Amino acid sequence: MARHRTRTARAADYIGLAHPFAPQALFPDGAIAELHEAALEVLERLGLRILLPEARQILAAAGARVDDEMLFIGRDIVDQALRTAPRGWRMRAANPARERRYAPRQLLFGPGSGCPNVSDRTRGRRPGSLQAFHETLALHQAFDVIHILGPSAEPQDVPAALRHLDMMQAQLTRADKPLFVYARGRGQVQDAFAMIRLGLGLSEADWQDGSWCYTVINTNSPRQLDRPMAEGIIDFARAGQMSIITPFCLAGAMAPVTVAGALVLQHAEALAGIALAQMTRPGAPVSYGGFSSNVDMKSGAPAFGTPEHLKMQLGTGQLARHIGLPWRSASGSAANAPDMQAAQETTHALWGAMLAQATLVVHAAGWLEGGLTFGYEKFIADIEALQTLAEMCAPTPLDMGLDALAEVPPGGHFFAAAHTMARYEHAFYPPLLADLSNHGTWEAAGAKEAPERATAIWQNVLAKAQPPAYGAEAADRLAPFVERRRAEGGAAPLD
Amino acid sequence: MARHRTRTARAADYIGLAHPFAPQALFPDGAIAELHEAALEVLERLGLRILLPEARQILAAAGARVDDEMLFIGRDIVDQALRTAPRGWRMRAANPARERRYAPRQLLFGPGSGCPNVSDRTRGRRPGSLQAFHETLALHQAFDVIHILGPSAEPQDVPAALRHLDMMQAQLTRADKPLFVYARGRGQVQDAFAMIRLGLGLSEADWQDGSWCYTVINTNSPRQLDRPMAEGIIDFARAGQMSIITPFCLAGAMAPVTVAGALVLQHAEALAGIALAQMTRPGAPVSYGGFSSNVDMKSGAPAFGTPEHLKMQLGTGQLARHIGLPWRSASGSAANAPDMQAAQETTHALWGAMLAQATLVVHAAGWLEGGLTFGYEKFIADIEALQTLAEMCAPTPLDMGLDALAEVPPGGHFFAAAHTMARYEHAFYPPLLADLSNHGTWEAAGAKEAPERATAIWQNVLAKAQPPAYGAEAADRLAPFVERRRAEGGAAPLD
Repeated sequence: MARHRTRTARAADYIGLAHPFAPQALFPDGAIAELHEAALEVLERLGLRILLPEARQILAAAGARVDDEMLFIGRDIVDQALRTAPRGWRMRAANPARERRYAPRQLLFGPGSGCPNVSDRTRGRRPGSLQAFHETLALHQAFDVIHILGPSAEPQDVPAALRHLDMMQAQLTRADKPLFVYARGRGQVQDAFAMIRLGLGLSEADWQDGSWCYTVINTNSPRQLDRPMAEGIIDFARAGQMSIITPFCLAGAMAPVTVAGALVLQHAEALAGIALAQMTRPGAPVSYGGFSSNVDMKSGAPAFGTPEHLKMQLGTGQLARHIGLPWRSASGSAANAPDMQAAQETTHALWGAMLAQATLVVHAAGWLEGGLTFGYEKFIADIEALQTLAEMCAPTPLDMGLDALAEVPPGGHFFAAAHTMARYEHAFYPPLLADLSNHGTWEAAGAKEAPERATAIWQNVLAKAQPPAYGAEAADRLAPFVERRRAEGGAAPLD
Repeated sequence: MARHRTRTARAADYIGLAHPFAPQALFPDGAIAELHEAALEVLERLGLRILLPEARQILAAAGARVDDEMLFIGRDIVDQALRTAPRGWRMRAANPARERRYAPRQLLFGPGSGCPNVSDRTRGRRPGSLQAFHETLALHQAFDVIHILGPSAEPQDVPAALRHLDMMQAQLTRADKPLFVYARGRGQVQDAFAMIRLGLGLSEADWQDGSWCYTVINTNSPRQLDRPMAEGIIDFARAGQMSIITPFCLAGAMAPVTVAGALVLQHAEALAGIALAQMTRPGAPVSYGGFSSNVDMKSGAPAFGTPEHLKMQLGTGQLARHIGLPWRSASGSAANAPDMQAAQETTHALWGAMLAQATLVVHAAGWLEGGLTFGYEKFIADIEALQTLAEMCAPTPLDMGLDALAEVPPGGHFFAAAHTMARYEHAFYPPLLADLSNHGTWEAAGAKEAPERATAIWQNVLAKAQPPAYGAEAADRLAPFVERRRAEGGAAPLD
């Protein structure tokens, strides 16, 4: 009874998070309208180079002006797209308890993704492998605060034409959260869709009801959309699956050197992707995405968790709300090691996403080197940051303990108060990685710094990892398909 | 000209910071009124033990009921105090450029303070000394984002009765920011006031115009105010100098185990201190203070940067706004080393203070071990966090770079665009500690993690440190006084 009451007192549901804070503004509303207008001008007058003929045809059919590979998308087309783009949808999962609504005010965290390398303290830095991919899935699966799966490690030991088969099989058999699919050409995407339907045993009606997987579409800023990305938008829209249009606008490199300039370019490119999705299939679930930041003007390297990154998060949130769509932000770090820089950059960017009221924050755990490496120890540290934010989403009971205040004399302590005894077990967030012991105790226990403690945590997670109950069943259903597609040589990525 | 324009574009004034975000709420307004009411009930019915007879007399004269050492302070007294407590005041400094207004919406950062030990990578962890105190002053002085001085290192090698003389002399000759004075009894406080007036050559009118120094008053929670703290409130109020009433309410130890309960106790104790200051001298500059957090229920150690700490920051901000006073929050870390835990805890707590709209954030740089150690490398890392927040306070120009957008072709880059060339030097925040180079470059340069890089930075700061221009003059003016007071044996701290 007491246990139940105290658990209720600190309601630690890390799955169904909604934003607790009011969204904050970078620019006044009038300036946001100006940025939106400038983006429309970019699309209409400067145009966008789209390398896939099919995409050009779809937009031309909708009334866009075409000049060779250049598309000039009028504001009427954008307006129409923003009328049909849904404001939210079901983001489905193998495990119904993991289903989320993808909509403004919701808060979802995704793992660090797209990393060619992985790194940990025991095995060092190395190219991503299928084993590493499996391990990262177990890490995603172990923490409720990671809401979706993501390609944390690129399985470079699997041939490129077969990689998508192994990645889908692993996600479907080893985890139960919303799935990720790379948009690397129609062949791979269709294989992935088929595997999801097969692995989860979905009827046509099930498959059509909500989005079971997502992809991230990066434009080739400035003003260019390549073939696999354009095809991905089309294929995901046709299948009613979610694409996240995310220009990667690095101010000073692929975008103007100012925050406002990078946002105009990002907004124009995102609107173009959203238009392509909606012209392909009105009502297709498509998320706005922002991943603008600055580059280090000394090295040209992308920066994360910097003031400019945070300002662009805030501005992106305003632009997304201006057009009414849910949107994706990102955390991340450029640090080369799981150190104070790494923790600080990621934590800053997470708070930026909170204040910007991002629907989804990807790269929220494990990113090092601007995404070139997934760090196991960094992942554990970031989980602590995410759980801290998740706790902020829970309501705080107005439990003032007036009896305890009356009971404890001046200069006394509350350790033994009845109010304390009934609650202490679950009153506070229990740290995952943080060690709060005093210096003497800490030193006596080996003076373990955060990375060393994090190693023990992820090793324990991996040692205890269990695939979901239905995993073996899914594997059986998938086996003949995977075997056949392997024998057929899989599907080469589209250039 | 271009240089001027770009400098203006990113206005990096780290001194005059004002909050850029709207304050966020933990509780609905009605609940805040309930907490305030509960605190008034605590003061009126449960009472507060005040160990200093003079303080009891002042409050009794104002109408409080006295029973031996217990004081029962009616809401009429609190109401009267809140009517005369000023809403803001000049926080003066030896260097007029460092003067700040201490008022709601302003944002000031103070260094990690009250640390008995110091630690750095080259010399290890050791008791604070006068030399360490001098070094920490040089660190405070080197960064504009540190707005006030603080006792980062306790000079344990100086006898307790003389320590205040050395600490004041060092602050007055080696730095030019608003000064800190410990409330360790009237003798020391009067010495400090005399030294400030002498060292800065202040007329009586100057001395009375604004607050030249500040002290922090910690209650002995629950519901107890000891002799030096009570005397400090009285002496600072009489001198028109600023005291910050900061109950240290650790939920589950010196306060109820809930966020709401700890806030009620904190609020009651802070109101008692404010009332004592205002009954001593109506209009005395007195700041509300909140330093409530939770304890680790395993070890009993105080926690910082935890969800409960952040929630209490938000609630404290609401309570301070409810009574209309400027207020002090704190960052900090319980970590034993300058690692990811340390960076994460401090960064979280800094963002908590931003969202709670704290006027002053103390312990904002350098705190380790919950304040038992000032870490030099941690200080440098925290300065990066503070500078990041300071950049967020600057307005963002609506400089969209439309010419550059038109000039750069699809798939091109902006490095050489005229818009970029005119701005790149000052477009972005230049990192202090963060190393954004790629992994190969970083490894070739010795694979230096953040603490190692931070060592080089503080060593460089100390090597280049110069006392302010007037420092020698101040030293000459102070010398006879200090010599005399030394000969007289100084002033023993009040028990």
